[in-house]
Formats: sequence, structure tokens, C-alpha cells
Amino acid sequence: MTARTPARKLRLNAFLMGVGHHEAAWRHPRTEPARVTDVRHYQHLARTAERGKLDSVFLADGLALHGNVRHNALAGLEPLTLLSALAAVTERIGLIATASTTYNEPFHLARAFASLDHISGGRAGWNIVTSAGEAEAHNFGRERPAHADRYARAAEFVEVATALWDSWEDDAILADRRAGEYADTGKIHALDHAGAHFRVRGPLTTSRPPQGHPVLVQAGSSEDGKEFAARFAEAVFTAQQTLAEGRAFYADIKGRLARYGRHADELLVLPGISPIIGSTEREALRLEKELEDLIVPAYGVQQLSNLLGVDLTGHPLDAPLPDVPQATEGQQSRLKLVTDLARRERLTLRELIGRLAGGRGHRVVTGTPEQIADRIEEWFTGGAADGFNVMPPLLPSGLEDFVDHVVPVLQARGLFRTEYEGRTLRENYGLVRPASRHARRTAAAS
Amino acid sequence: MTARTPARKLRLNAFLMGVGHHEAAWRHPRTEPARVTDVRHYQHLARTAERGKLDSVFLADGLALHGNVRHNALAGLEPLTLLSALAAVTERIGLIATASTTYNEPFHLARAFASLDHISGGRAGWNIVTSAGEAEAHNFGRERPAHADRYARAAEFVEVATALWDSWEDDAILADRRAGEYADTGKIHALDHAGAHFRVRGPLTTSRPPQGHPVLVQAGSSEDGKEFAARFAEAVFTAQQTLAEGRAFYADIKGRLARYGRHADELLVLPGISPIIGSTEREALRLEKELEDLIVPAYGVQQLSNLLGVDLTGHPLDAPLPDVPQATEGQQSRLKLVTDLARRERLTLRELIGRLAGGRGHRVVTGTPEQIADRIEEWFTGGAADGFNVMPPLLPSGLEDFVDHVVPVLQARGLFRTEYEGRTLRENYGLVRPASRHARRTAAAS
Ligand SMILES: Cc1cc2nc3c(=O)[nH]c(=O)nc-3n(C[C@H](O)[C@H](O)[C@H](O)COP(=O)(O)O)c2cc1C
Ligand SMILES: Cc1cc2nc3c(=O)[nH]c(=O)nc-3n(C[C@H](O)[C@H](O)[C@H](O)COP(=O)(O)O)c2cc1C
Repeated sequence: MTARTPARKLRLNAFLMGVGHHEAAWRHPRTEPARVTDVRHYQHLARTAERGKLDSVFLADGLALHGNVRHNALAGLEPLTLLSALAAVTERIGLIATASTTYNEPFHLARAFASLDHISGGRAGWNIVTSAGEAEAHNFGRERPAHADRYARAAEFVEVATALWDSWEDDAILADRRAGEYADTGKIHALDHAGAHFRVRGPLTTSRPPQGHPVLVQAGSSEDGKEFAARFAEAVFTAQQTLAEGRAFYADIKGRLARYGRHADELLVLPGISPIIGSTEREALRLEKELEDLIVPAYGVQQLSNLLGVDLTGHPLDAPLPDVPQATEGQQSRLKLVTDLARRERLTLRELIGRLAGGRGHRVVTGTPEQIADRIEEWFTGGAADGFNVMPPLLPSGLEDFVDHVVPVLQARGLFRTEYEGRTLRENYGLVRPASRHARRTAAAS
Repeated sequence: MTARTPARKLRLNAFLMGVGHHEAAWRHPRTEPARVTDVRHYQHLARTAERGKLDSVFLADGLALHGNVRHNALAGLEPLTLLSALAAVTERIGLIATASTTYNEPFHLARAFASLDHISGGRAGWNIVTSAGEAEAHNFGRERPAHADRYARAAEFVEVATALWDSWEDDAILADRRAGEYADTGKIHALDHAGAHFRVRGPLTTSRPPQGHPVLVQAGSSEDGKEFAARFAEAVFTAQQTLAEGRAFYADIKGRLARYGRHADELLVLPGISPIIGSTEREALRLEKELEDLIVPAYGVQQLSNLLGVDLTGHPLDAPLPDVPQATEGQQSRLKLVTDLARRERLTLRELIGRLAGGRGHRVVTGTPEQIADRIEEWFTGGAADGFNVMPPLLPSGLEDFVDHVVPVLQARGLFRTEYEGRTLRENYGLVRPASRHARRTAAAS
């Protein structure tokens, strides 16, 4: 028997990224860089997260190499195929894949996510991104569309995808062997969608996903990004450095939901946290220092140059970050976060690189399991988070440490589940299964 | 110790399709139609095929529903995600996914197949199709391109995809922790491809696939289709009804290879065979009859109408097939096969539907394991096949029967392996691993 605990529970997502989120992780003796393309590595991570009763694992994605691979062990496996291989060796954990609306077709993505949802028994989630990089466009014979245009396309994309998931009603399959009627084609609907970006006839080739719609996740924090999230997203990944910023973001995005007829509970806010864990504070600080010493400054310079849209090569490492234009067609909110941080703390370029190396702008928390649980509790009870996007600096060890040492503390405090509530990601995230728009229409008409 | 046997060995691929290839399979008491979206069903099939030492499993694919689902249990899971879930529970068997060059981007597909190849340890294959159906175009805001245009796009598509797989040389990854050099970016190449259909800068985000290139498979038998196969394909699936036709096709396609500087061994010809197996001939014939009795004529009429591009609804079932125009922008070779068959054997519409119900134009062979092995041997030794695309009428039972009763006969005759030769699909198919074009260039220059 588990103790009776308050209803509101933390949601925890494990963000899986090669051999760790720290950009120097691959150089640290506790990792094996050859594992970045080894499916067994990711299967071990997913099983570890499931052992810790985490809600989900998440894979980021980019559609261009950006040359960053010179100094970092980037994997580049395609998230949907990889998550499908993780589905096969897990039972309960949610599986969230990033996919771009800017360079894909809604029919393909809706179908792939429907398949992943069937394959996993209702555990699929989609992190909807618009591909902020310029290089990505060039792999598709395009120029990068403007920021606002990307979000406009994303909105129509999601409308089409959800309509495709609804195109088969839940009870469309009869499987009547005697009569020879497999499906009631009256319950399988064409879309005949014709919009600014897409014309899609439908229906989908796949029956309705177990979750109705895979869980919709979003991670952009510009004005357009937040508006998009308020309209569509059921979970938001976000990078917030301070508790005050975290609270402001939380209140801001929850406040936007009503405009779309949605309730605050229908969207989970999950800030990133990179926990550097030690059995003592001293041990944690030592690990942090070891990682810092392994940073390759040239890598940080290139990452920052890409983000800021300014070539920083040759800029003195010990001088302050130069002024950069704030208007960008790239990642608006991340650019603001980074330049704010540099200005607020008067950081040199080298210091800024060090601060970003751990979590690329996400909060790094260094300490004992209790200290890390304290910070999590503070944000969770303090109106800044519904849960966290956990970004271990080293993989697998950082995830193992989190599951073995931080999770039990959170459970003992009654903040986190000791058993899964359900079988699907929606059930564990506490999100409602959406009815098909056709079923709703039928119900309304009767 | 296995007996010493002649070098040339059969290649056997299991074509997995819902609960069976017979269009009435889902109505037969030996199937469970609910399993068409159940990943465990496909995992059982893949494991069964692997137990029988088959070379590969294969999934077909279509990008539109065509309404056929009224009378048939069509699954519609997306092949790449599904095969990835099969990779996770198998060790040796090849995994061939169908994907269209007409409605995809080469960057996406090259990346997904590279991922599947990494995930499976070198077992991926790609059945390259051009999407012959009109309805498929309408899910992508397009009209179906003409037959020749589809093949022209397919050729450029494959050129780009193979260039992307070569964009990382095999030894591009240094993983030099001490120096902080993960990859030698001098061995990671942009493409800067600019052709009639695609502009793709590259490189790929994923390191070179274990097989160099996933195995390239093709299944169109029109003039354009055969020329495409001769240029690119390493295995060809084909529908041939008679030994004479099979021999003619085999000689034709092998004869085209030299034009592209290729040797006859570099392409495997795998005709389809749908084996209806009984422990006695009588039992096999009874199963065949049971399936025939379950045919829904309306389904066959619609399938034929789609293929022939002529609406046959209302045409008397017991009258001969009407004359239909032979020029089509759809499936040229399949249309010819079907109208030839109807004319040669003076079949009524009902009879034609019955003949196609088992294998959609592929050869149906009914009999004992020995009788089926005889037909396989006859084609294999008679210059009509390098192996077969096995299409069991019922799944899983038809594949289990094939593995348990036909495979041992083939092994006893020395025609089929008793153990896998290698770990990758290329190794088992006896195909060479292609060197990267950059490595070749470097070698040539030195
Ligand atoms: C936790 C997190 C994960 C993200 N993962 C991806 C990703 O995998 N691929 C991607 O293209 N963008 C990713 N992004 C970037 C966002 O999708 C978005 O482009 C970025 O935050 C800037 O959006 P904005 O211009 O609306 O602020 C991620 C952002 C966050 C906070
Ligand atoms: C065994 C076999 C499997 C096939 N699988 C597919 C498939 O999954 N998807 C598809 O669009 N076409 C498939 N085809 C059709 C071929 O790709 C091609 O479109 C058809 O044979 C007509 O091509 P042609 O016009 O060159 O003759 C298959 C054909 C054969 C023989």
C-alpha cells in the first residue's frame, strides 16, 4: 500500500540526448561516445526512466548538421524510428518525438505518429517544432521561412494532423466476418482540407490512434510560440533560469488558455532542469568542475554564433559578449534568454559559454539528491512548474542517479507517483482523451 | 556440421501483410482480424521468419485508403516505425520497408533508413516505389505525375539518398576525447545537389549506415520500371504467373545490368509465391476452397476497377472482362499481367477475381510441402528466380506452416541455408557493401 498523498503530482520527462546534455559529456570518463548510435543505449535509458516511474522520454531533433559534430558526439538518429524501438522494450513510459512542421507533410507525420501510438499502445507524443535553423531549409531546397510564417504553417499543419487522426471514428471497425464487412466506411471521413499551406483529401490509412490524438507538446517561447502553445499544446518544454522567470512564464502561458476555451489543467508546463548530482555537495561540485574543464571553447563559440546569427569566431574569449541584434527569424525566445543572462550577470564570452555548456540555457542545479529535490519542490509548489524536463548531464549515469536517488526523495515527500496511474501517456499526464470531431458532431446532432 | 552443398542458395523474403495475403484471410477462422494493428502480431511473424532462417521480412505501403477497407482488414501502420519495433525483437532477419519517391523528400527518407539501419545493426532495405495510385496524390495537394515523370523523379531521389548515405565517410568519427575532436569534418561532405527535382545541401545528420547503403529493392516491371531496377536495384520483387514468363523476365532484367556496368549477381530476382500448404494435397485444396468461398465479389470488383482505371461496378460477374485501355499512368506491368491472364484463359469477371484473390496477380501454389518445394526448386534451378517473395495466404499460420514444413524440405535438398551467413541483410543476400563515393575518390586519387 502506498501512502495517501495530495492529488497534484509532478510530471517528469527524461530528455534523452546522446551520452548527456553537457556539451562535454562525451569527453568524460563516465560516458561511452560510441553509444550515441547504439539502440541498446537508448533502450537502457528508457527502461531506467520507466523503472523510476517517469512519465515520458523525449528526443529532440534537427534537420541539419550545422557542423557542430566536430567537437560534440551528436547522434542524429531519427526520433520516430528510434522511439518505436524503445516502445518494443517498455510498457508504460511515454515516448515523445520531435518533428518539424516546416519541412514535413501533415499526412506523413500524422500517419507516423498514429503508427507509433498503435505500436506503443497509446504512449506517443509529438514535440511540434518549426525548425529555427537556416541550414535545415537548404536540405529541402528552400530558404527558411520567416518566424511568423513558420508558426502560421504549424497551426494549419496541426489542424490537418488532428483531423486525420479523427478521420476514422473509434468504432469504425466492425470486423464482421460473417457479413464480410470489415469497416463501416460511413465512419471513415474524408477531410477535403484546402488551406493556405496544404490540400489534403484524407482519410488517414490508419485507424484512430489509441489516445485519440498523440499528446501535443511544444517548446517555443516567443509571442507566436506561446500563442501556439495556448491553442494546441498539452505540455510545454521551456528554459527558465530563475524562479521569478519561471513563475512569470507559467502565469503568462496558463493565462492565455481561456482565450481558446481551454482550462489551465489542459496544459502542463515543464521547465528544463539539468541536475548535477553527488552523494555530497562537494562530490556534485567536483563533477560540475570536471565537466567545465572539458569544454571546448570553439564549440561554444560556434553554438552561440548559430543562435545569435552573428559570427563570434575570433572574438576575444575574455571580453564581454558584443551587442547583437535582437530581431531574428531564428529562435527568438532562446536568443533573448541568452543575451539577458549575459547582460544581467555581465558575463565574458568564455563565462557565458561555460554557463550554457550544461543545459544550453536550461537551469543547471548542482547538489545532493535532497538539494535537487528541494529546488524541484520549490518550483512545483511555487507556481513555476507542473513538472520537469530532466536533462541529465551524463547518460546513462546521470539518469540512473536521478532515478535511484532523487526520485525516492520526491516519492517520500508525496510529490511523485510510486506506480503508474494508467497505460497511456495521456492517462499518466492526467490529460483527457479527445473525442473524434465526427463523434462529437454526431452526438450534438442527436 | 551441415552437409556440403552447392554455393548458390535460395533467398527467401516473407511479405508480411495484415492477417494474410488472401483477400478473404480476415474472414477465415484461422486468423484474428484485430491483430492487424497489433505490433505483437508482426513481432511474432518476424521471429517466426527468423526461426526459419529467412533472409528478410517486407512491408508494403500505400499513401491512400482507396476505400478498400470496407471488405478487407487493412492495417495501415507506417512501415519504418513498424520495422523498427521488429528490429528490437530480432537479431538477424532483414527488414525491408516500402517508401515512395513521389511524395517524400530524399533527406527525410535517407535519414529514416539510415536510422533503421543503425537501429537494426545493418538489416534495413528499401522497396522503392513511385505510388501508382491517383488517390495518393490528393493527400499531398498534388495530381498524380505521369508514369515516366515518377520514374525520373525516383532516379534523382535515389541518387540524392545514396549521396547522403555517403556524406559521412566510414572513418569520419574520431571520438578523440583527449583532443576534444569527435568527428573529422573533412570526412563529412556536403552534396550541394541541384537537380530537376531536388536541391539538397547535405550532409546527412546521421553517420554512415552499417551497410553503407541499405539494400535497394524495386518492384515495378514496366519498361521504365525494369530500367530503373537494372540501374539501382539489388533485389526485385515481381509477379510472374508461368515458368516461361518467369524465365523471360529473369533473362530480360539480368540482361539489362551490363549497360550500367553491373554484374548479373548484383541483382536478385524474387518472384512472388503464395503457398497454400496442406499436409496432404487434399487438405491444401480444401483450404484453398474455404478461402475462395469467403471472397466478397464487391471487393474484387473495386480492386480491379482501381487497377484498370475503369469502373466495373454493375458489370455482370459471369460475363467476360470488358476491353480496357492498355495505356495507363498507373501500374503498367500489373495491368498487363491481369488483362493477359483474363484473355489467355478466357476468364469471366468472377473467375478473374477468384484468380487474383489469393495473390493479387502473384502465383498461387497449392499442395503439400514437397509439392511447394518442387515448384520453388523448378523456378530456382530453371533460370526464373534467385529466390522468392513468400506471401502466405493466412498469417501467422501460413508463415508458420512454411517455416515448419517447407523450409526443412528446402534445407534437406541443399537449396536453403541452415544458418545465417552474416549479420547484415547484405551479407545474407550475398551483396557487396558499397564503398563511400568519397572513399573511392580518395583511393583513386592516391
Ligand atoms: C526543451 C526544448 C527542446 C527543444 N527541442 C527542439 C528540437 O528538438 N528541435 C528543434 O528544431 N527545436 C527545438 N526546440 C526549439 C523550439 O522548438 C523553438 O524553436 C525555440 O524554442 C525558439 O522558438 P521561439 O522562436 O518561438 O522562441 C526546443 C526548445 C526547448 C525549450
Ligand atoms: C511484390 C510487389 C510489392 C509491391 N509493393 C508496393 C507497395 O508496397 N506500394 C506501392 O505503392 N507499390 C507497390 N508495388 C507496385 C510497384 O511498385 C509498381 O508500382 C507496380 O508494380 C507497377 O509498376 P510499373 O508501372 O513499373 O509496372 C509492388 C509490386 C510488387 C510486384
